[in-house]
Amino acid sequence: MASDQSEGFDGTSIPDPPETEYDVLDAAIDDAGAVGFVAVGDRFDPALRYLTRFEGPERGYAFVRVPGKSVLCAPVGHIRAAEAQFHGAVVAARVGDPAGERAAAVLDDERGAERTGSNPGSVLVPPTIPHDAAVYLERGGYDLQSTTAVAEARVAKSDAEVDAIEAVQRAAAAAVRDAERLLATADIGADGELLREGNPLTVDRLKRATNAELARRGVTDAGNTVVSAGTGTAASIGDTERATPDTPIRAGDPVAVAVSPRGPHGYHGSLARTVVVDSDGGWDRRAYIAAESALDAALAEIEAGAVARAVGREADAELAAFGFDPARASVTAGQPAPGHGVGLSRRERPLLNDDVALEAGTVVAVEPRVKDPEQGTARLSALVVVTADGYERLGDREWSFAPRE
Amino acid sequence: MASDQSEGFDGTSIPDPPETEYDVLDAAIDDAGAVGFVAVGDRFDPALRYLTRFEGPERGYAFVRVPGKSVLCAPVGHIRAAEAQFHGAVVAARVGDPAGERAAAVLDDERGAERTGSNPGSVLVPPTIPHDAAVYLERGGYDLQSTTAVAEARVAKSDAEVDAIEAVQRAAAAAVRDAERLLATADIGADGELLREGNPLTVDRLKRATNAELARRGVTDAGNTVVSAGTGTAASIGDTERATPDTPIRAGDPVAVAVSPRGPHGYHGSLARTVVVDSDGGWDRRAYIAAESALDAALAEIEAGAVARAVGREADAELAAFGFDPARASVTAGQPAPGHGVGLSRRERPLLNDDVALEAGTVVAVEPRVKDPEQGTARLSALVVVTADGYERLGDREWSFAPRE
Repeated sequence: MASDQSEGFDGTSIPDPPETEYDVLDAAIDDAGAVGFVAVGDRFDPALRYLTRFEGPERGYAFVRVPGKSVLCAPVGHIRAAEAQFHGAVVAARVGDPAGERAAAVLDDERGAERTGSNPGSVLVPPTIPHDAAVYLERGGYDLQSTTAVAEARVAKSDAEVDAIEAVQRAAAAAVRDAERLLATADIGADGELLREGNPLTVDRLKRATNAELARRGVTDAGNTVVSAGTGTAASIGDTERATPDTPIRAGDPVAVAVSPRGPHGYHGSLARTVVVDSDGGWDRRAYIAAESALDAALAEIEAGAVARAVGREADAELAAFGFDPARASVTAGQPAPGHGVGLSRRERPLLNDDVALEAGTVVAVEPRVKDPEQGTARLSALVVVTADGYERLGDREWSFAPRE
Repeated sequence: MASDQSEGFDGTSIPDPPETEYDVLDAAIDDAGAVGFVAVGDRFDPALRYLTRFEGPERGYAFVRVPGKSVLCAPVGHIRAAEAQFHGAVVAARVGDPAGERAAAVLDDERGAERTGSNPGSVLVPPTIPHDAAVYLERGGYDLQSTTAVAEARVAKSDAEVDAIEAVQRAAAAAVRDAERLLATADIGADGELLREGNPLTVDRLKRATNAELARRGVTDAGNTVVSAGTGTAASIGDTERATPDTPIRAGDPVAVAVSPRGPHGYHGSLARTVVVDSDGGWDRRAYIAAESALDAALAEIEAGAVARAVGREADAELAAFGFDPARASVTAGQPAPGHGVGLSRRERPLLNDDVALEAGTVVAVEPRVKDPEQGTARLSALVVVTADGYERLGDREWSFAPRE
């Protein structure tokens, strides 16, 4: 925490956004005999972020690709930002101009003399393109063909993308390490509650302090941080319990801290750690070792060509071998998969229960968890990039059951 | 900054998510003679957040309304979170089940015996429903009718929504106030550069410190914070310049700090302040007074029934009266409108260049800005809720040209 780290200024540097390669998209256009590709979405659409590197507004805007050329239909009020961020042609949308209508006009312009009257050809679109945009394109005479080319191109990361993710992961590791330090150096009250400066250290306070450290390192928590202690959880997105932010943390509680911060370039990190202050070596210790073993077992399966679901099952099997109910910790009980891809989305394909082969370059967070409504949660994660014959670790390689000062 | 505020623990409490009223939606279904309403989206869709209060995953999920009953088709791995957060019926989607297909099945179930063979009726959908979901509903025999009922229902806020926004705005004000303090208490180096602990205070450092304060107060910066000093900008979403994070802040620089944090309930605040350390009373002072006057002039126009664009024009006219080129600061030069609605979106309708009447209950950030490529930026904002005969201020009511300690 900043209080004893001078002002907590930190030199963590986050790289600029990677460049996007459009080869896969051009190949898909060519394969389909299409005239181009259109995506429409807003700043929260990771595919559009990938295609444009543009941090757009909440309103919909359009990206158009014709072979060899990219065009961004930027919304009014964002032209200069688009020109600074996007490596392609920027055309302005008129006020109130629907993004799909503008995209159809750009396609018409780009095709120019090639256009043959009533049959302008077919256009590739993602299956989730907004319905109104699809209708505008169809009204423009274009046949729509659905493509998953962009989703597929996003799975394997370029070196620059891996660097972008690793920079965020370093910030994540530092923030979680600082949360450990807060726990390790807390006083312990008469009832076992952790105290800092005489005040109870609650799950919400630990969460806020962790998020403040992320901010100091130049990344945003993005509302994704989850802190749990014993059976109380400062719930956040995707967590399964109601928020109980005032839960005090006690000695002997398994304290799980999970962050998925996002850098200014849009890429995420992903890190989960569990620590226990003054453990008595009971359930929490066994759960921790089971999670650790499950993590190792899953990692040992990772290499290009391995099936994602098989990796996840290896983690579940190891939990079962330690006497924990894998069903309780697995997707069959409504729990998330024990790992997932990480990139411009916090959680993206492949999930570790998908029946797909891992590709070299894919960045995967492996995260087994043990959860018991009577005892609490233990979760540990590793972020790795898949290689031809294994994986490389990104960011933090160490963890500790007892929090480190 | 936390270094001299004990540990910076802060009691700021953020209220639980407001309840959603479905009256407007039921009326729209009734008016259209439709059997129900379907929305499909992911966790970043503010309309879906409004309808469900569910912090869902990145994958698409569906909300179905039939008169008097709401159903959430929750994705696998998020059932318990959905049950905890959503006030309605939760049904599980099967793995790989497209959200649109599941929504059609829910509609079929809900209509039950009413269903009359090949003509199940029409369904209202937002115009931006994902195209694949629209196709699944159509395959299910439903006619789709586009509706803007949800967008309209979101414009005027309930008291609970205003409370949710005001809590975030208080955190925003405290964080920006802390940035002021960092500036006010900095040392000044030989070349006029601001120093803290002997290190230059750059725009990026000030941005990180501001975001850390937001985190400590229980809200996320959400990647929205923009800090500029002189002509250098630590750019973020929607800003018009390239990032120059290492720009040192100097005495005499107009320093603009703009935040749009988001609370755990999903609602945003919005605050912009400009301060100058040791101003020599030149361009920066005039720009500040012009922005202040423009803000006052725009606020004086606000009441239920006033036209949003007229409010924005009042700000522009005042800037012109002070000798600043309103075109440079206005939408005609590709700049954002001088204000916008605030809610589950950081920027939402009405923009202050829309030709619509303001409704009582709408929360609006009024934010005139003066921008000069040679001099820098001055921006000031007020967050207000529109009332029948004026407005009420939310959060911070004060500002200062010289940063306060």
